[in-house]
Amino acid sequence: MDNPNIVVIGATGTVGTIFLDLLEKRNFPIGNIKVCASPKSVGKKIRFNGLDLLVEEVTDDIFDDADFAFVSASTEVSRNIVPIAANRGSIVIDDSSAFRMQKNVPLVIPEVNANDLKNHENIVAIPNCSTTQMVMALYPLHVKNPIKRVVADTYQSVSGTGGNAMKELEQQTDQINNGLTTSPDVYPHEIGYNVIPHIEGFLEDGYTKEERKMVEETQKIMHADNLAVSATCVRVPVFVSHSESLHIEFSQSMEVDTVKELLSNFPGVSVIDNPEQNLYPLARNSAGSDEVYVGRIRKDISTPNGIAMWVVSDNLRKGAATNAIQIAEEILAQNLLHT
Amino acid sequence: MDNPNIVVIGATGTVGTIFLDLLEKRNFPIGNIKVCASPKSVGKKIRFNGLDLLVEEVTDDIFDDADFAFVSASTEVSRNIVPIAANRGSIVIDDSSAFRMQKNVPLVIPEVNANDLKNHENIVAIPNCSTTQMVMALYPLHVKNPIKRVVADTYQSVSGTGGNAMKELEQQTDQINNGLTTSPDVYPHEIGYNVIPHIEGFLEDGYTKEERKMVEETQKIMHADNLAVSATCVRVPVFVSHSESLHIEFSQSMEVDTVKELLSNFPGVSVIDNPEQNLYPLARNSAGSDEVYVGRIRKDISTPNGIAMWVVSDNLRKGAATNAIQIAEEILAQNLLHT
Repeated sequence: MDNPNIVVIGATGTVGTIFLDLLEKRNFPIGNIKVCASPKSVGKKIRFNGLDLLVEEVTDDIFDDADFAFVSASTEVSRNIVPIAANRGSIVIDDSSAFRMQKNVPLVIPEVNANDLKNHENIVAIPNCSTTQMVMALYPLHVKNPIKRVVADTYQSVSGTGGNAMKELEQQTDQINNGLTTSPDVYPHEIGYNVIPHIEGFLEDGYTKEERKMVEETQKIMHADNLAVSATCVRVPVFVSHSESLHIEFSQSMEVDTVKELLSNFPGVSVIDNPEQNLYPLARNSAGSDEVYVGRIRKDISTPNGIAMWVVSDNLRKGAATNAIQIAEEILAQNLLHT
Repeated sequence: MDNPNIVVIGATGTVGTIFLDLLEKRNFPIGNIKVCASPKSVGKKIRFNGLDLLVEEVTDDIFDDADFAFVSASTEVSRNIVPIAANRGSIVIDDSSAFRMQKNVPLVIPEVNANDLKNHENIVAIPNCSTTQMVMALYPLHVKNPIKRVVADTYQSVSGTGGNAMKELEQQTDQINNGLTTSPDVYPHEIGYNVIPHIEGFLEDGYTKEERKMVEETQKIMHADNLAVSATCVRVPVFVSHSESLHIEFSQSMEVDTVKELLSNFPGVSVIDNPEQNLYPLARNSAGSDEVYVGRIRKDISTPNGIAMWVVSDNLRKGAATNAIQIAEEILAQNLLHT
């Protein structure tokens, strides 16, 4: 087979930039590559593998000879573009929430449910960043001792919103440090020196869409329809990496050492858990890494079969770009590319 | 009865400063007042009720004619000073953790367990800040529908550590904004643009002392030894006000509207809960207020009798100074001052 041709949509965004970097670093096999972005970026050049790639407009025809289309754009853009790309024969790996819950769209974390890729109909969705790192920490435990319930509270970085949010955070802290007033734009409230319990829109039951994703996506990826999840998703003034406090209830009692062993042996997960040395996962230390870090592993003393833990991962990497490229690698490895 | 004489220990600290301000604003009856602090502050002057108070050294004799001693210092200082003051006849209202769990020391939130003051033996402890705001939100619900279990994850501001931590946060964000390296001092890791799942020292079971306090203090204040609590306490880059995500399991099913009504009617609690208008409690908006704010009230969809909510309060006010002065006011109202 020839090396696959690739189109990257959203190539100049926070995730797209990292994605291109990973394509290089992981030596992903590439025939030709085209990079697209929103009209304001069209005509710019992106350095890639020693070449200058010209940022192009997205057109229907651009997918015609593409084997893979990686889409990291808004949900609205994905809703328009993804079906077109899929119809023209590309396998679309989509980072938006637009198709994740569709029955004929595999929602995949390769370490967890690579088998689901077999049923793809040219669209594969990658999970929401807050879901991915949670499932990476839950799944290796769940196969040993089925999980009944998870309570998750998140501490999510602003890069999940995009580059504008990162600029807004820096600007607001600077303004506050200098005694100036701020004027929130990207978020409905100040994010500088604040925490906001509101990510994505609110639903009728009082949960946000982000919180709902952590329930539904987790159940779909783990094939565990009865797994109960309740989440509170909170934006914190951190640039990169999401942190999560998880309280897990298992079917049977679970020893802390067993949890550590299972997590340590799972690909893509690293245990950092030495409180005596003040060692536990930290957002700032995790930025730029592909790993999901787990620490503060202890019995949940409020319930018989409970475990509490702290999970941190770079939301732009395993939460987005890394997971996307891993899916493509898995599709090649499973020989699922119909060309 | 003459107005009570007062000694304030830790008068120049973050809590002491607010405490003196509240003494003025609430027109607390005062005979004479003495203010003490650590040696480096001795000799300074503090403006109070139009007078300049001279900061004195703490001596045993200073308590001889004091009716109330308010202590907001380190646990070590409290351990030394509090018994001396109590022996000399002062009623000590202590903000440290040194005496909270002693059987003969009432641990009091006046709205919740003012009756416990009747048994005081000259020492009254005020709860840890993260406990107080949680119990203020739990108690009015618990009396209606006994709570069986609470999972609490916190987002705690740096002012809980003190003024040095507030300076460190501002300095680090400034350094990071300017591309400089930071050197953590107050905390074991960078707090600028980071979250740290570590408040107070670690215990053998993997929990921190702060997390343990939220269990034991809650049980003591609410006279609910069987109430199961599990907490993860996390420091966030916020100056003032702690936020908490609570997941509560009741004995019976509980409607969201009932929760809102019970909380709205409880003194010291305000409900801010209008997601459609992006209204929910926020740390930055709550700083400087005596209230405990509750919002994001919804069914916990992961358990039959569950409610999830978001609780925010100024840790220096209701979490410390306000609660202390309310205790003194209650002691006067109940005529429990033995002079």
